[in-house]
Amino acid sequence: MCGIFAYLNYRVSRTRKEIFETLLKGLQRLEYRGYDSAGIAIDGNNNEDKESNIRLIKKRGKVKALDEELYKQDDMDLKADFETHFGIAHTRWATHGVPNAVNSHPQRSDKRNEFVVIHNGIITNYKDLRKFLEGAFALVFKSIHYPGEAVATRRGSPLLIGVRSKYQLSTEQIPVLYRTCNIENVKNICKTRMKRLDSSTCLHAIGDKAVEFFFASDASAIIEHTNRVIFLEDDDIAAVADGKLSIHRLKRSASDDPSRVIQTLQMELQQIMKGNFSTFMQKEIFEQPESVVNTMRGRVNFETKSVLLGGLKDHLKEIRRCRRLIIIGCGTSYHAAVATRQVLEELTELPVMVELASDFLDRNTPVFRDDVCFFISQSGETADTLMALRYCKDRRALTVGITNTVGSSISRETDCGVHINAGPEIGVASTKAYTSQFISLVMFGLMMSEDRLSLQNRRQEIISGLQMLPEMIKEVLSLEEKIHDLALELYKQRSLLVMGRGYNYATCLEGALKIKEITYMHSEGILAGELKHGPLALVDKHMPVIMVIMKDPCFTKCQNALQQVVARQGRPIILSSREDTESSKFAYKTIELPHTVDCLQGVLSVIPLQLLSFHLAVLRGYDVDFPRNLAKSVTVE
Amino acid sequence: MCGIFAYLNYRVSRTRKEIFETLLKGLQRLEYRGYDSAGIAIDGNNNEDKESNIRLIKKRGKVKALDEELYKQDDMDLKADFETHFGIAHTRWATHGVPNAVNSHPQRSDKRNEFVVIHNGIITNYKDLRKFLEGAFALVFKSIHYPGEAVATRRGSPLLIGVRSKYQLSTEQIPVLYRTCNIENVKNICKTRMKRLDSSTCLHAIGDKAVEFFFASDASAIIEHTNRVIFLEDDDIAAVADGKLSIHRLKRSASDDPSRVIQTLQMELQQIMKGNFSTFMQKEIFEQPESVVNTMRGRVNFETKSVLLGGLKDHLKEIRRCRRLIIIGCGTSYHAAVATRQVLEELTELPVMVELASDFLDRNTPVFRDDVCFFISQSGETADTLMALRYCKDRRALTVGITNTVGSSISRETDCGVHINAGPEIGVASTKAYTSQFISLVMFGLMMSEDRLSLQNRRQEIISGLQMLPEMIKEVLSLEEKIHDLALELYKQRSLLVMGRGYNYATCLEGALKIKEITYMHSEGILAGELKHGPLALVDKHMPVIMVIMKDPCFTKCQNALQQVVARQGRPIILSSREDTESSKFAYKTIELPHTVDCLQGVLSVIPLQLLSFHLAVLRGYDVDFPRNLAKSVTVE
Repeated sequence: MCGIFAYLNYRVSRTRKEIFETLLKGLQRLEYRGYDSAGIAIDGNNNEDKESNIRLIKKRGKVKALDEELYKQDDMDLKADFETHFGIAHTRWATHGVPNAVNSHPQRSDKRNEFVVIHNGIITNYKDLRKFLEGAFALVFKSIHYPGEAVATRRGSPLLIGVRSKYQLSTEQIPVLYRTCNIENVKNICKTRMKRLDSSTCLHAIGDKAVEFFFASDASAIIEHTNRVIFLEDDDIAAVADGKLSIHRLKRSASDDPSRVIQTLQMELQQIMKGNFSTFMQKEIFEQPESVVNTMRGRVNFETKSVLLGGLKDHLKEIRRCRRLIIIGCGTSYHAAVATRQVLEELTELPVMVELASDFLDRNTPVFRDDVCFFISQSGETADTLMALRYCKDRRALTVGITNTVGSSISRETDCGVHINAGPEIGVASTKAYTSQFISLVMFGLMMSEDRLSLQNRRQEIISGLQMLPEMIKEVLSLEEKIHDLALELYKQRSLLVMGRGYNYATCLEGALKIKEITYMHSEGILAGELKHGPLALVDKHMPVIMVIMKDPCFTKCQNALQQVVARQGRPIILSSREDTESSKFAYKTIELPHTVDCLQGVLSVIPLQLLSFHLAVLRGYDVDFPRNLAKSVTVE
Repeated sequence: MCGIFAYLNYRVSRTRKEIFETLLKGLQRLEYRGYDSAGIAIDGNNNEDKESNIRLIKKRGKVKALDEELYKQDDMDLKADFETHFGIAHTRWATHGVPNAVNSHPQRSDKRNEFVVIHNGIITNYKDLRKFLEGAFALVFKSIHYPGEAVATRRGSPLLIGVRSKYQLSTEQIPVLYRTCNIENVKNICKTRMKRLDSSTCLHAIGDKAVEFFFASDASAIIEHTNRVIFLEDDDIAAVADGKLSIHRLKRSASDDPSRVIQTLQMELQQIMKGNFSTFMQKEIFEQPESVVNTMRGRVNFETKSVLLGGLKDHLKEIRRCRRLIIIGCGTSYHAAVATRQVLEELTELPVMVELASDFLDRNTPVFRDDVCFFISQSGETADTLMALRYCKDRRALTVGITNTVGSSISRETDCGVHINAGPEIGVASTKAYTSQFISLVMFGLMMSEDRLSLQNRRQEIISGLQMLPEMIKEVLSLEEKIHDLALELYKQRSLLVMGRGYNYATCLEGALKIKEITYMHSEGILAGELKHGPLALVDKHMPVIMVIMKDPCFTKCQNALQQVVARQGRPIILSSREDTESSKFAYKTIELPHTVDCLQGVLSVIPLQLLSFHLAVLRGYDVDFPRNLAKSVTVE
């Protein structure tokens, strides 16, 4: 949450208008991380006193509101030209303090704006702040005392730096500069170091030539300017002075990588554009026939019916020997673990625990050296999941990352992992990442069981199911109009229950979460098996109930639940299998889905609920890609 | 669900009115198991043709409605005297088919009422019924062809038989009569056997003297008549003819107990009366200072700071050697497992999994010989939990029961167990059973860790906490008026969120369930750590939010959640610790609770939510002890 972006141009002439546009474009790309207020800090007019020459412009609301505000600044000459300039920008997701201009970033040290800073994270000990800095943060500083210079650091929250120059860069690998010192010395580090840097310890365009630096919370804000980036590690301090980027750390430890490599992003700009869709979320729902193919590409061989996950193959022996699998995530990622738990238990023949990262940490859950722990996170930066990863590493468990973001903290800090390859996901409500996480976990199960004779038929059945998934997803997406009609009937409701069990319990949790997130209706996913232990009391003719009833081993039990709902005058809307002739007799409405292998059915059955949440939100007049109170990557605890 | 009761008087003269009263009283005691319709079958008038002489009287609604209906039967002479008579009665909880008179029990074979039957359970293959009988059931039959005779059987659903006579009984141990035969022979078994029974194979009053038999779903319906009972095992067939009770089985298997012992119930009638309270639920909430003492009585020695659970001590070595603990339950019992998971993980140093019984079964969860599985159920008859128990036994895991009902299926079928001793719980919404289950699990953890030097301080802290609990519960109960005032503000709301984390996550789940069950408000327990992953979207100034924030290791994180709710204009009602001076500054309302050891705090923090649900339901005009659609013991899947 919160997005930070900063832009430093060195010997590259830019007008103030161009700088505004770059900063705002960067914020727009990061807006999914928070959008209740935004602000920037730039240099003031040339004719002002240089020593107090930082202007702060901040505005409550989305980035668009800030955009309008910028051009209302009558005293700011848009054509003014800056050969070297450093501007910082921030879009906020409020955790402490209401969203308003004062609470927005950049924050400043004093009225003269001597030092201004943008911050992503939560400083948990804010009351003791003056004593010592803790918590999670990514920070970028600008100061009137160091015009055209930048200082940035991170711990917990992500931060990367893009570099662009038409000249050759001095190095592809920036050595880290160490200095063991106490906290008092930190203040002076950048300042003193900067002047003594030689060409071998920093990155710059050869011959002190023109260069631009972009600081951002994630790559999507940078990709339109450059694909050359450096991912900062926790506690790195990056500084730019005289167009030279250097990276510093306070202390050296044995496991430290002694340099930071410039990486080339594979992302394409069009991947983060909306195309023909009105919202990112809708686009991403409709991308699923392709995104699941990308998840399987080069991994599942449909001819030989075999599966190979390159990122795991060297660790497979060790994983097979483990005591248990623990799968950890938050929100939608957690649901992907719930959805695949049964098939993983079946294919790996190991006990599988699924855990919400925050609860896992709260409980100080015992973890052992012979455990294998999976960490699922679309962004790879989810704070709770990342902390759970570090907790498990400390206990020497083998750690496996399942992320959608190359270079993210989780993908870097795990022993091995799977990149789900779903392509960038911008909509705050996760859709295609869920189905790709789901399939990645199934592929892992298939790989684990390749040597088990008794499981070969089952494996082949699942692999055939995977092959047919993309076509079946298209069939499900073709139901959109019917689901829109359903939304028309439901959108004025306040509450909604989504019930199912077995392989589709996770579908209900995930569907209810989508509806919560973007429609603000109080929807709840309910295990149909628990109905009689309480939730049935809510059922009457007024409460809308969606039931997921698929042709699988739970079918008869789901029919019992259906009978109980009908006996209480409920009018169930049923997501059913096309092969099911029973359920529709008792249904108020039926949405019929193609039938696939039991353990993959959840990939299909979640999609109508994704679409339903989308249409409900549109009908209720809400901004689908920017639900209130939420943000995309939850990089704070 | 569903309660069945039957009464056979043999050579004990009873008027029809007395028989009515006995049957209705029995149903009233069982009414918590279902109350949407009720019915009885009794013998008709003496002057009618004896061969078609069964009268069925059934009525939609609670037992009271049936009561009124009985006395409207103008042609039934209330003073008519029956020296020997068999009457059957049923109170229904609808699973298949709406609640009405036709669907009520007794059901009959034909218009002449040749055979009438009362049934508790679900016959899952009702469509194939004519081919073969499966599913769960307890059945009692009456027939015009066998006046004054009774046949009863059970599988899955509970059934017991009370015996009363002023004469000595022929035996204390009834031998089981076996006959290996196919299904066709079953029909004739009772008929042919009955005539050939000799005195050594059945129970009767010596000398064919006067005797009465009471058939019921549980002991509470029998205790006012007799404390001498026989618990039937699955597939037992009990028959009474000529005042003689015999017990039959189709097949003998090696593990069968060859006889059924008459047991003496320790229950007191007053335990199942309401006393000065308007409802059982309120009475049971206020019993908690005593019920927790009863749970600990004879087990926790506060002087030596030691804990001994007699039912487990012989198995402790085996439990300590296990691979992991799996704790299985439904509804409130599941929440007791969630509440104590962390302290069990800490004290046993074992991995602890908690599982909803239905989901555990749906997933065919792998269970191993070196697992120890706990089964928690107030009634000891919860169908899903019982099936999970059998599933785990088949896989040779050690099984441990935690129940409140001596002689229940779960307490009989587990290898060992703990009786929670909370006293009978009648209110459908479980309250005192939750706190006693909680404490039982904590006591188990304490017993497991008695030999661990490093845990001694922690153990002593917890044992001291246990000692102070009863007084602290009294303090919490003294807040009732304040909670009533809160209910006055909230009772017109439709939705309600209850948030917390760590040790108090279960408090939120359980509190929300109470509110769901008896107020029909859509309440949901939310893990505060998941707030940012979706549920925060629901928060605005209209949505009531209850937050549980205690002084424990999650306090700071809970403060963050509080800030996030406040930042979104939420007006949180906080259950806080008296030692907390922070939270109330941000609260709309605060309920301050006494502070105890972190892992026991949940015993105190759940009580205000029990009280709140109670007062909300009363204000909304609902019947607290009989919430719509629900029943006490969920003896069907």
